[in-house]
Amino acid sequence: MTFSVTILGSNSALPTTKRYPTAQVLNVSERFFLIDCGEGTQLQLRSNKIKFSRINNIFISHLHGDHVFGLIGLISTFGLLGRTNDLHIYAHRDLEKILQPQIDYFCNDLRFTPVFHHLNTKEPKQIFEDKNITVTSFPLKHRVPTCGFLFREKQKEPNIRKEAISRFNLGIADIVKIKKEEPFFDETGLLVPPEELIIPPPAPRSYAFCSDTGYNPAMIPVIKDVDLLYHEATFAEEHTDLAKKTTHSTARQAAMIAKMANAKKLILGHFSSRYDDLSILENEAKEIFPETHLVNDGDMWDV
Amino acid sequence: MTFSVTILGSNSALPTTKRYPTAQVLNVSERFFLIDCGEGTQLQLRSNKIKFSRINNIFISHLHGDHVFGLIGLISTFGLLGRTNDLHIYAHRDLEKILQPQIDYFCNDLRFTPVFHHLNTKEPKQIFEDKNITVTSFPLKHRVPTCGFLFREKQKEPNIRKEAISRFNLGIADIVKIKKEEPFFDETGLLVPPEELIIPPPAPRSYAFCSDTGYNPAMIPVIKDVDLLYHEATFAEEHTDLAKKTTHSTARQAAMIAKMANAKKLILGHFSSRYDDLSILENEAKEIFPETHLVNDGDMWDV
Repeated sequence: MTFSVTILGSNSALPTTKRYPTAQVLNVSERFFLIDCGEGTQLQLRSNKIKFSRINNIFISHLHGDHVFGLIGLISTFGLLGRTNDLHIYAHRDLEKILQPQIDYFCNDLRFTPVFHHLNTKEPKQIFEDKNITVTSFPLKHRVPTCGFLFREKQKEPNIRKEAISRFNLGIADIVKIKKEEPFFDETGLLVPPEELIIPPPAPRSYAFCSDTGYNPAMIPVIKDVDLLYHEATFAEEHTDLAKKTTHSTARQAAMIAKMANAKKLILGHFSSRYDDLSILENEAKEIFPETHLVNDGDMWDV
Repeated sequence: MTFSVTILGSNSALPTTKRYPTAQVLNVSERFFLIDCGEGTQLQLRSNKIKFSRINNIFISHLHGDHVFGLIGLISTFGLLGRTNDLHIYAHRDLEKILQPQIDYFCNDLRFTPVFHHLNTKEPKQIFEDKNITVTSFPLKHRVPTCGFLFREKQKEPNIRKEAISRFNLGIADIVKIKKEEPFFDETGLLVPPEELIIPPPAPRSYAFCSDTGYNPAMIPVIKDVDLLYHEATFAEEHTDLAKKTTHSTARQAAMIAKMANAKKLILGHFSSRYDDLSILENEAKEIFPETHLVNDGDMWDV
């Protein structure tokens, strides 16, 4: 199953000619989940050839402009394209208050409904589920109420070993039971060890999005053992004071979170425009967590 | 004096990977006037190396999303950059109602004031004046109240001929009078013909922005003899019905306006995304008005 994230924007608040403000799109088996929606997101979706009609769910971390100013343009474009599927938007409750008047004014002939789901910004909560994944929001630490999001594959059923079907003369009812890991007895009444019947499913993969946030170990239990962790890294160590003041993270702090969470891989973004050369951030993070990478707009990362 | 327009966005409502939605910036002697502000305008300003601090006036033709969705991001960025100069926004009165709540929510520590000037969408009116230019708004014909804008250089004073200064022994008081074209008499009391004293100033140049609009000859008296005319050309002739229905223009209709207005040059934009090859629009317009050009994002046109 495809499970990858494409970076649409990776800068902090001030966009540059090379980096748009924050937006990402998660591809889960060709269903697309948008995470944040900075100005220009619809342009970046086009540049990256993402089909607009495959986006039905948008997750907004917090209500700072560089994470939401692209929403009204995207909704307007959905309308012009004749969209009829409802669009689900998961965000702080204020977004509806801010966005609905704009929708009413600029998009008065929509044939779909933007459905607002208000996030719980106080504690972790599963907010979405389909046949492939669950999405859990969890509190981050920022100047305004902010949530991270954990996208986790569901545990797949095991596959039946082909040779077991003929060997044990398995019918469909047997297979359904065996896949549910119920005990199976052969014709002589002996319990068959599961490893002779099934191939264990791959471990469910997971992706965590953590931006914007200051250093926040409180999130570790939620993102524990995550496969791919996106964490903001606005500043280098020399600006730790500034990170604290603005409730952002240094690259090193992001790496500490990745290490404590036992993440497999860490990708960093939301860079301050002050750094011409970002390798200092990469190096400072790698000292703590070697499997660290900086993202660029247009990157696609497999989870 | 520099007097040129840079095209920041030239597509109609649905942006493409090559054309942003409508925005232009007029350079009048290194003071910049923004005309419309579609999503991504701040990104295009950066790409075109326009200094944000030189923009003090924004003219918004009408309140369709593809002409205004970039405003909140631009204002937010001005705030983050520490701007202190007031920002004057000339637009339909509803813009203030729509934008101010967003400014209040997202830009709560601005050190400048966005000052809203409400356009008269019923009749032509001079809405701005500085030492170099005047700006006049005038009604266009669209589905919502819409204004075009005429930017006109002020008439410069004539220059004194160098040889006249010694020949007639001119003092500063004489020069001031002569520049104001008051009669000047030589030592013998004879009236000196003005052509012996002055070099006539260049004719004031003018730029007209007409988008969005259906075919609208009513604007001809306002834009008469304009040097450079930007007119929307959403459709080719084959879609005249669609142009009428959506109150947009065909390229040929834009050319008819340019011809009737005795414009020196016509530039066309706001193209529908349906045309892979825009040469049909260019050709149809040139049959009526040969001095026609299609614009691209990033183009700079001298007025």
